[in-house]
Amino acid sequence: MRKFSLPGEGVTRIAFSDEDWQARAFIIDLMKQEKLAVRVDGFGNIIGRREGLNAAAPAVVCGSHIDSVPNGGNFDGVLGVLGAIEAVKLMNKNGFKNYNPLEIVVFMCEESSRFGVATLGSKAICGGLGINAMKQLKDAEGISLYEILRARGLDPENMKNTLVLNKIKACLEMHIEQGKVLESMKKSVGIVTGIAAPTRLKLKLTGKADHSGATPMHLRNDALCAAAEIILEVERTAAASVQPVVGTVGIVRAFPNVMNVIPGQVELGIDIRSIYTEAKDTAVSHIKKYIENTAKKRNIKTKLELLTDEKPVKLDKSVINIIEDSCRKKNIECHLMPSGAGHDTMHLAQFAPAGMIFVPCRDGISHNPAEWTEMAYIEQGIEILYASLCRLSEPED
Amino acid sequence: MRKFSLPGEGVTRIAFSDEDWQARAFIIDLMKQEKLAVRVDGFGNIIGRREGLNAAAPAVVCGSHIDSVPNGGNFDGVLGVLGAIEAVKLMNKNGFKNYNPLEIVVFMCEESSRFGVATLGSKAICGGLGINAMKQLKDAEGISLYEILRARGLDPENMKNTLVLNKIKACLEMHIEQGKVLESMKKSVGIVTGIAAPTRLKLKLTGKADHSGATPMHLRNDALCAAAEIILEVERTAAASVQPVVGTVGIVRAFPNVMNVIPGQVELGIDIRSIYTEAKDTAVSHIKKYIENTAKKRNIKTKLELLTDEKPVKLDKSVINIIEDSCRKKNIECHLMPSGAGHDTMHLAQFAPAGMIFVPCRDGISHNPAEWTEMAYIEQGIEILYASLCRLSEPED
Repeated sequence: MRKFSLPGEGVTRIAFSDEDWQARAFIIDLMKQEKLAVRVDGFGNIIGRREGLNAAAPAVVCGSHIDSVPNGGNFDGVLGVLGAIEAVKLMNKNGFKNYNPLEIVVFMCEESSRFGVATLGSKAICGGLGINAMKQLKDAEGISLYEILRARGLDPENMKNTLVLNKIKACLEMHIEQGKVLESMKKSVGIVTGIAAPTRLKLKLTGKADHSGATPMHLRNDALCAAAEIILEVERTAAASVQPVVGTVGIVRAFPNVMNVIPGQVELGIDIRSIYTEAKDTAVSHIKKYIENTAKKRNIKTKLELLTDEKPVKLDKSVINIIEDSCRKKNIECHLMPSGAGHDTMHLAQFAPAGMIFVPCRDGISHNPAEWTEMAYIEQGIEILYASLCRLSEPED
Repeated sequence: MRKFSLPGEGVTRIAFSDEDWQARAFIIDLMKQEKLAVRVDGFGNIIGRREGLNAAAPAVVCGSHIDSVPNGGNFDGVLGVLGAIEAVKLMNKNGFKNYNPLEIVVFMCEESSRFGVATLGSKAICGGLGINAMKQLKDAEGISLYEILRARGLDPENMKNTLVLNKIKACLEMHIEQGKVLESMKKSVGIVTGIAAPTRLKLKLTGKADHSGATPMHLRNDALCAAAEIILEVERTAAASVQPVVGTVGIVRAFPNVMNVIPGQVELGIDIRSIYTEAKDTAVSHIKKYIENTAKKRNIKTKLELLTDEKPVKLDKSVINIIEDSCRKKNIECHLMPSGAGHDTMHLAQFAPAGMIFVPCRDGISHNPAEWTEMAYIEQGIEILYASLCRLSEPED
């Protein structure tokens, strides 16, 4: 998959880009090689179906995403898609007959790099992304998600081809951990108990763009200095939370952004996460209060926009048990753990029993060209995914 | 001049842009209307000469610049060029005969917006900008100053057409104050005693671009948090200096600058100014030390580049006296003051007696679409410029 990327370090396969489109064609081809019946829904989500012995039974869904952040890695998302196709390949090889239909999914536009909001494809499937929202979400070039979908020949107003939400028996996603927990504990497989969900804020600070040489310090309204105080408070707030919270200012843009003008305007993108709803809400409201006070102190105008405010999600006990059981049978060391990162599964978990399998990644590095996972871990992950999918697609007792 | 601008708020006439080139043609035309003999040097500086009764006598030089910052104002620089041409118009009208030749100059590329370094045209005239430097200075698109000069049909290797540095009797520049001193004192004219010069640093901070959800706070090397501490320390250091110093972080760029990745790399542009050399040096070395300590504390790599380190300049007492005298004769209230902003005159002041006339501007706002100066102030400024140029171009006693 690595070759479907813009030039430069690591993998740059932004959702809906030409590279993404080439990668999709490659995946569709792989699915067809494994005799999956492929369909694409109105948002571009790809679904490859392995018919069940009972075609009318609810489907077992398994997938992840193939888009990347700019200069990201080769495993984030991709592992879950290729792993699921590999599991189907094993079923074909072993002559396994699934009672329930099996649907392998590529969720579109999981990364928030392009539109500032993550997991758009799974959100669209779950009815959480309306046409108006698609028209309002714009990329850095000001092109709306809706226009981009249309330009790719997709019709987001017609989602009849997508997953049937009330006919999902279970869903499962394999993903790299994107953290250091498994590595530090020397475990091969992580079984996710809950998914932290982000609250994301877009903050616009407006001060006064004066001459950097001729404006004494006490007469300034420097939007970047206000931004700097807020950046540090986001860090302090997260670090000080008793229940784990992470807080990141990932985006900063200053205007006019030249040497000899005091920044008159600054935009920040703030991301706060926790698997503890209350701890996250406390952090967010503290940060909002701090922004207000800083703005008042420095005579800066603010415009705060709530981009996302998602609830942490608990994963399904019965699916967790099936994964755990598969590990036990294969003698693979596993660890029950929360996920700090958000995943498409968090949306589907609201409609069906859901589980996630984590595979360790080196130094916990992700969203970075240095992202890496050993083949031995990948193999073990796929073994567990295969075993769990087989179990899930057997008739219930 | 306002119409020679990119669309958008205020004036955007970046040096060497098409808008700049149209404005230059307009100015050359104005100069020719006033019967000035126009020549352009190898850097693009425009010189309009009014021959003197003694053509061999040293020239009196008067000018400013016409390039702007992005979304800047209509007065910064332009006033000094149009004012000088207006003074020549008055000479023509009044039949004034200058003994010394008079050279009206448009200095190219005064603003640092394009190349991160200011007053490039006057620097080139004064021999302070070599061909190698022109090849190394690049704009945001990576095009070198040298390539841009060549593309405009200029030959920076041939400067024989430029001002003759050892044949300048005096030089004079009129400019808006870009500060609030004159306005607050209700004075019409400022006479500049010295020019603060900038020290400019480009700082690159390299941390680690990890996943914003899956990386606990204590395992981060967030380059933007380090940058935020430095931004605030630049502000604190300048504000705390006993002798006036201003410190600005005007540029910030974070990479990859997306919501879900901890900024792995940040670039800052830092500008420190004072008319007190020692106070400026103390501030700069304090900031350097702080950068080092912050980087160590946060395990961040730094690369610090010194872009400019100019010495504050004292202006000439005899020129100051002539301007002051002109004000007294016209009954115009003036005020002796330093200039916080840098100007082309600071380079020429090293080769000839130099002076500057400031005109008040509303709220001290400059480098901003709201930049404004009342016509009454402009008229008084030109009167003083005219009177001073007449005095300076008379034979010496």
